Amino acid sequence: MDNNRIFAVIIAGGRGTRFWPLSRIARPKHLLNLNGNTSLLRQTLDRVLPLVTPQRALVVTMKSHAEEVRQVANDLPSKNVLVEPVGKNTAPAIALAAAHIMDKAEDPIMVVLPSDHIISPLEKFLADIQIGANLADSKGVLATFGIRPTRPETGYGYIEVGEKLGAQAFSVLSFKEKPNRKKAKDYIGTGRYLWNSGMFAFRAKVLMKNINTHLPALYTAWEAYKNSPKTQEDLEKYYAAAEPVYIDYGIMEKCGNVAAVVNASFDWSDIGSWDAIDDVWKADSAGNRKQGDSFVSIASKENTVVSKKLVALLGVDNLIVVETDDAIMICKKDRAQEIKLLVEEMERRGLKDYL
Amino acid sequence: MDNNRIFAVIIAGGRGTRFWPLSRIARPKHLLNLNGNTSLLRQTLDRVLPLVTPQRALVVTMKSHAEEVRQVANDLPSKNVLVEPVGKNTAPAIALAAAHIMDKAEDPIMVVLPSDHIISPLEKFLADIQIGANLADSKGVLATFGIRPTRPETGYGYIEVGEKLGAQAFSVLSFKEKPNRKKAKDYIGTGRYLWNSGMFAFRAKVLMKNINTHLPALYTAWEAYKNSPKTQEDLEKYYAAAEPVYIDYGIMEKCGNVAAVVNASFDWSDIGSWDAIDDVWKADSAGNRKQGDSFVSIASKENTVVSKKLVALLGVDNLIVVETDDAIMICKKDRAQEIKLLVEEMERRGLKDYL
Repeated sequence: MDNNRIFAVIIAGGRGTRFWPLSRIARPKHLLNLNGNTSLLRQTLDRVLPLVTPQRALVVTMKSHAEEVRQVANDLPSKNVLVEPVGKNTAPAIALAAAHIMDKAEDPIMVVLPSDHIISPLEKFLADIQIGANLADSKGVLATFGIRPTRPETGYGYIEVGEKLGAQAFSVLSFKEKPNRKKAKDYIGTGRYLWNSGMFAFRAKVLMKNINTHLPALYTAWEAYKNSPKTQEDLEKYYAAAEPVYIDYGIMEKCGNVAAVVNASFDWSDIGSWDAIDDVWKADSAGNRKQGDSFVSIASKENTVVSKKLVALLGVDNLIVVETDDAIMICKKDRAQEIKLLVEEMERRGLKDYL
Repeated sequence: MDNNRIFAVIIAGGRGTRFWPLSRIARPKHLLNLNGNTSLLRQTLDRVLPLVTPQRALVVTMKSHAEEVRQVANDLPSKNVLVEPVGKNTAPAIALAAAHIMDKAEDPIMVVLPSDHIISPLEKFLADIQIGANLADSKGVLATFGIRPTRPETGYGYIEVGEKLGAQAFSVLSFKEKPNRKKAKDYIGTGRYLWNSGMFAFRAKVLMKNINTHLPALYTAWEAYKNSPKTQEDLEKYYAAAEPVYIDYGIMEKCGNVAAVVNASFDWSDIGSWDAIDDVWKADSAGNRKQGDSFVSIASKENTVVSKKLVALLGVDNLIVVETDDAIMICKKDRAQEIKLLVEEMERRGLKDYL
């Protein structure tokens, strides 16, 4: 196939409350440097730009982050940063991108990527994406990318793998929503389930045909937008009509045989909360993690510290400590998923400067 | 007695490692604001100045703190801030003050006060000091001030109370060094023991007579200094000759019947480490303590927080959190006594900026 038909669509949304106080309403997770010197969004761009030209890379983002996203993605044409007037989950966002690329190539192929995952090594990522794009092109499927589970994670959806369609490629027997712990263990036990990474590859035409079938109201709004001059007014009309729906629930779970899955060979983390940092940062001999030298600890283990100031720990375990210019957050690691409660409490108390 | 014979001698030494990171080598505990708007040293001065004029208040301090102490005590004549060329514990420091006041009044009375305790209310303090001064004057004793114990504290010395000498005044049967927990409980059980507060009242002549008896080498050095022009060279000669000795061990424990104790009526805390803050600051309904509004906590109790930045806690208990301009210290409350270990570790690692 002709790789010039491939377009990368990066979904850069989210409020990022789970990485408070580093993330804020105006600074979601994809704009953070959690594992290196650049933001997760920039890393996502750098990962895909060996495959597509900047002209064929698009970012869909929110009004409140648009300016910073344009700065991070400043090697892309400015018009390739699509700004949603309001968040309506992934299906309308992906369809929006489809409207913008449909006429840019003969039968374009979309590779849809979340903006805030950590993936390595590059070579495996590019090879797997190529497999997904080829599969989507040759078989006319909506291809997902499945990750081999390493633990009975309850925070992800699972994909039940069916018959083999090619190297690393399989049909999908079913999509499973986030399971409880027992079910997650069962899934892993069978060896037939993969984590749903939220990455996709499909021909734009195949996507829109399936949207027409399963989300007809969205299709109608989309068709009107696609054939319009695509002004701000047209965009707002489209979003006003679009129902908020995830592509997973709205399309993938309903499309039956049209779904396929690539068994990904790369390492992957969606780094969904502060505790996931532990998968990415190296620990010292006591299990403590801090970037930089300014860290002293005595009788303390398994703590993860993000700060500019020197941090000294005495007799504390399993803490996440995050310092920003205006706030310090200290949380027990096993409650990292609940940090949004702190954000909600601050909203209640009107502490707007910290949101 | 004539209160114009009374001189206050405030001992302002110490490295203050126990209040790191707020205290530093150059910023010992008595220069910190731990319970209000002024430093503990300033509070000590303000407590005693209703009793003595600024001309009759002296502060003995170290070279490294002299400048800041002079600023805090700027209502005292500059010559009333005595600067030790080297620390030799309390006996040489108190004797130094005696040398400077011996000729300033007829038979002067010294009231010796640590600079870093928290005491209230003022009226009771002044009344008790007056009792001590009268006792020292009329009976020729070395009077200490004993605090009614409220818990089996192992961090203080204890005074075994003997026969009654007057209102609130008693002879001393024995001084007990810091006990273990069992002994401390025994002491409290008898009802005959008081905490040794480290405060004293005595006629300067009586003090020096006892130093002559129990620390003759110190007396010899002192006499030479007292009769010298008291130049910097004379001062250094005195300190070179003086052995480092606490007045408690060196004199009080050895002077037998000459010791007496005033059963103090005021509230007292030596606020010896971060956990003692809990005796001074009010807690919220979850037992958390922070000055100022910028505090959010969920599922967290009994934490004490000192910071300018907003602090948000999630699922953590019994922590002491202290933020300064360059450091953040997090320690389990029951290890507050061990904070000096962090300071030692930083010394070892050459992190001089933080000491």
